[in-house]
Amino acid sequence: MDRETLSWPAWDLQGGSGYNRPMIPYERHVFICVNERDPSDPRGCCSTRGGHEVASRLKELAHAAGLKGRIRINKAGCLDQCGMGVAVVIYPEAVWYGRVKPEDADEIFHEHVMQGRPVERLRIGSPGPSPAAD
Amino acid sequence: MDRETLSWPAWDLQGGSGYNRPMIPYERHVFICVNERDPSDPRGCCSTRGGHEVASRLKELAHAAGLKGRIRINKAGCLDQCGMGVAVVIYPEAVWYGRVKPEDADEIFHEHVMQGRPVERLRIGSPGPSPAAD
Repeated sequence: MDRETLSWPAWDLQGGSGYNRPMIPYERHVFICVNERDPSDPRGCCSTRGGHEVASRLKELAHAAGLKGRIRINKAGCLDQCGMGVAVVIYPEAVWYGRVKPEDADEIFHEHVMQGRPVERLRIGSPGPSPAAD
Repeated sequence: MDRETLSWPAWDLQGGSGYNRPMIPYERHVFICVNERDPSDPRGCCSTRGGHEVASRLKELAHAAGLKGRIRINKAGCLDQCGMGVAVVIYPEAVWYGRVKPEDADEIFHEHVMQGRPVERLRIGSPGPSPAAD
């Protein structure tokens, strides 16, 4: 398979980093929170909000696209965005999505994973401290 | 907390990417495979090889270092490195580790997570197709 068929080739993160070997085994690595909390927990959880369904649909799409070995769809433990679940993060871009519904999976896949165009309407800003303004 | 206390500040992945908002909520995001397979599966799995123990120790170290909100330790589903388990990947650098044992967690944390120095003896090269040599 020609790695150039994705419209947004993997970035050269090696530039200036001091590494001397390949560092991007997956051109895009997608993590979907499927954390489960006790039903009494007021925070809720990504599992009951459809995390498994989001992950399943993304895996289905990746398989159908023949992208095994180039992209990876993984379930993950709590991504600490309980108020924004279902949470999804895509590396190496470190783009975060929140309130993702199973019906959003196709758009994330076709727009971001395949075309490199983040789905702005679903993005979270920075859930942690704001990066230094340097 | 001063974000500069880590010796290797988050890279500016925004340079040239076209994004206009913060993209690195975690300065380092660590994923540990804890996938479970049937005991009869000859591939084995990261769960029985100590994935949970690796994750627990990394979480313990992160908590002790007071780095909540700056780094994140997450369990993940199968990272597709079953022959190299326990598999660990750290973003945004996309550095992969294999055959990680619970007793390796401290070195990964103190060297890579805190100091930005990958632990070479534990690294995997590229588990997928080799990146284009451009």
